[in-house]
Amino acid sequence: MSAHMTVQIRKLSTTDSDFAKQLSGVLAFEAREDESINTVVANVLNDVRENGDKAVLEYTKRFDRLALGSGAELEISREECEAALASLAPERRKALEVAAERVRIYHEHQKKSCGSDGYSFTDEDGTSLGQKVTPLDSVGIYVPGGKAAYPSSVLMNAIPAQVAGVKEIVMVVPTPDGARNELVLAAAALSGVTRVFTIGGAQAIGALAYGTETIPSVDKIVGPGNAYVAAAKRRVFGTVGIDMIAGPSEILVICDGKTNPDWIAMDLFSQAEHDEMAQSILICPDAAYLDQVNESIQKLLPNMIRKDIITTSLSKRAAMIHVKNMEEACEIANSIAPEHLEISAENPEKWEKLIRHAGSIFLGRFTSEALGDYCAGPNHVLPTSRTARFSSPLGVYDFQKRSSLICVSEKGAQTLGKIAVELATGEGLEAHAKSAGFRLKN
Amino acid sequence: MSAHMTVQIRKLSTTDSDFAKQLSGVLAFEAREDESINTVVANVLNDVRENGDKAVLEYTKRFDRLALGSGAELEISREECEAALASLAPERRKALEVAAERVRIYHEHQKKSCGSDGYSFTDEDGTSLGQKVTPLDSVGIYVPGGKAAYPSSVLMNAIPAQVAGVKEIVMVVPTPDGARNELVLAAAALSGVTRVFTIGGAQAIGALAYGTETIPSVDKIVGPGNAYVAAAKRRVFGTVGIDMIAGPSEILVICDGKTNPDWIAMDLFSQAEHDEMAQSILICPDAAYLDQVNESIQKLLPNMIRKDIITTSLSKRAAMIHVKNMEEACEIANSIAPEHLEISAENPEKWEKLIRHAGSIFLGRFTSEALGDYCAGPNHVLPTSRTARFSSPLGVYDFQKRSSLICVSEKGAQTLGKIAVELATGEGLEAHAKSAGFRLKN
Repeated sequence: MSAHMTVQIRKLSTTDSDFAKQLSGVLAFEAREDESINTVVANVLNDVRENGDKAVLEYTKRFDRLALGSGAELEISREECEAALASLAPERRKALEVAAERVRIYHEHQKKSCGSDGYSFTDEDGTSLGQKVTPLDSVGIYVPGGKAAYPSSVLMNAIPAQVAGVKEIVMVVPTPDGARNELVLAAAALSGVTRVFTIGGAQAIGALAYGTETIPSVDKIVGPGNAYVAAAKRRVFGTVGIDMIAGPSEILVICDGKTNPDWIAMDLFSQAEHDEMAQSILICPDAAYLDQVNESIQKLLPNMIRKDIITTSLSKRAAMIHVKNMEEACEIANSIAPEHLEISAENPEKWEKLIRHAGSIFLGRFTSEALGDYCAGPNHVLPTSRTARFSSPLGVYDFQKRSSLICVSEKGAQTLGKIAVELATGEGLEAHAKSAGFRLKN
Repeated sequence: MSAHMTVQIRKLSTTDSDFAKQLSGVLAFEAREDESINTVVANVLNDVRENGDKAVLEYTKRFDRLALGSGAELEISREECEAALASLAPERRKALEVAAERVRIYHEHQKKSCGSDGYSFTDEDGTSLGQKVTPLDSVGIYVPGGKAAYPSSVLMNAIPAQVAGVKEIVMVVPTPDGARNELVLAAAALSGVTRVFTIGGAQAIGALAYGTETIPSVDKIVGPGNAYVAAAKRRVFGTVGIDMIAGPSEILVICDGKTNPDWIAMDLFSQAEHDEMAQSILICPDAAYLDQVNESIQKLLPNMIRKDIITTSLSKRAAMIHVKNMEEACEIANSIAPEHLEISAENPEKWEKLIRHAGSIFLGRFTSEALGDYCAGPNHVLPTSRTARFSSPLGVYDFQKRSSLICVSEKGAQTLGKIAVELATGEGLEAHAKSAGFRLKN
């Protein structure tokens, strides 16, 4: 190991007097609200809304260097996706199929358990109350193109929609210079995608939100994208539904100090290699173990293909936190509310019970976060940047919505009517009071 | 009835050749994206973030004409809320208590039925997968002040949070010129609100999102507000969760032509009286019945206290739609995706089955929408402006979040590891591959 490959990782201890301030410095991440991006995006969205295919074709030519003659040429056929799947090496095809199957099984369990059947009950007046759950009619899935084109993202976004019962699943994926990613198309063939268009950027979000002559408008848009895509999603929110706007990926590892330190080092790398802004944090009550992981990091880093990204990410955003005990580790994890939380310890269930806020919790020494990214089954689209305090992994429930059901009996209209008249009068809403009052017998 | 009280309501028929275009004209509603509002709100939010209580006190003085000496004076004590409840006339207090109780019972049924227990299952390798559901730690509830101060809103926003198990429920309500609404405070006492502050506008949203010396930051902000409040919520989304940004209220009534036309006229008024931009639409297969309802409208309108608002709303935004049959009425309802849908007909369940998109469905001639607003039990916070295509009534689920649980067995790490290595290699993510690969036995 040469000296220049050494990466400096911040070390914190909960015994430091300014620990809280240090930790908040480590976590600080401001999603830039770039006004120039906002302006570009607003113009692109307006143009797509007004000019449809013509605008989409123009932006695709300008940004993806792909000149097409008509909207119809933007579509990739089902046959081409099937052909991409058939062309994969058998090992890879098998891996993709097993992953898709496991993701499907997990989300079928979820569908059964997340209240998809709705409910109803009847009160003593014979008034029945409840809720029904229905799938969305259509969704759009944004898949980034180029170097960050991930077939696993296609599976994770499309399969829950399919399991929910969404009839139309429209995928958009930019193909810069016309280059198509076979694995991405193969994943589309496996996961219930009904139509695929080779568009990206804010123009793709606009097309899915407003519809064009060729591209159907959808009810909700999900999937990751760059700053332009994120800004466009934020703007069309309301016209269509959107998923969370994702920040950089994060992993928090709580270790009791007895897992092979090379394993933990590599788990930290697996977040760091995503992005220079990705965040990897290790918490442990054993100071000597933190040093061992640091040694593993210095040993393993020089041979990593993406060592430059890893080095930047670790030196800018990583931290090792020495704590008094595992209980304190769990408290800190709750304050961080990480996207991914590994509990690499004996009896991990004991510590899991103390965790309130985390997107996905990986329990035990064998559960590397990477298994969750690809094939364990649970969704890898998870709340980032502390949003696990109030939001959830992408799931079947994101592709369903609920309608309340109220059927008031004649008798119920008498008892409820009097209450409504009283309260509506209190709020100064006379028509509300009369609307209930008209149904009163006397 | 004097001639000048006549209100003209648009009449459409599905046999009109340009029906689709006419309908889309009726529905057209563009939430104004007022840049001047955006600029003001951005400045207020930044100021609150940087200057805390000082900024909040200054804006409260400026906008609510309420000069206070310290942050502590912004708080209304639990005792004052209890005193407000005790001071209510017995009839009104009873009505509020029964409404609160019915809302609570409904949401307790919802909690049992919406997957609050999570789930887990184990695969053939002994790997266990699942999800746990936990309440949010804290939420903020925005309650508008002044003329549109609705105690029913307090119940509808706070009770589902309380049922979900949220520990800290912080209510903010502006008190212009220091005027406090006793009914609103009484509702807070009944619905599990833990703290109340007399602040409103963008400054209240900023305080709840970022926290000040006095006002605690929360994890999610819900509740209706004016354009400044809506713009502020949109901006803090990500730092905290928010509910939907509500548009004007809407009712769609499908009637088979056999309900007392006065009842239906008053149901249409009950939306129209909310707001000049509120929308009331009646669909019926019986043209003569539409005329009868129109006559009822002309007859009843002159005596309504809020007749000016109702007249403006009905003439600007209402419509009567003549359809071929009830099936066609349901199709149109799905394309409108209304906030409130009344099915005022024989065997309403038959038609309810055809409805895919609606916030709340009111079944049968006795189920006036007003009963749902106050006391039937289901939530009155509902998706507006066609967002029922992809979103749901406010519910217990909005105050919960989910965390995935993955515990891979040693055996599972072998089978899953090989798949992850294959797919990670395909995506060019070496650290992911090695992180899984390190756990392979050979």
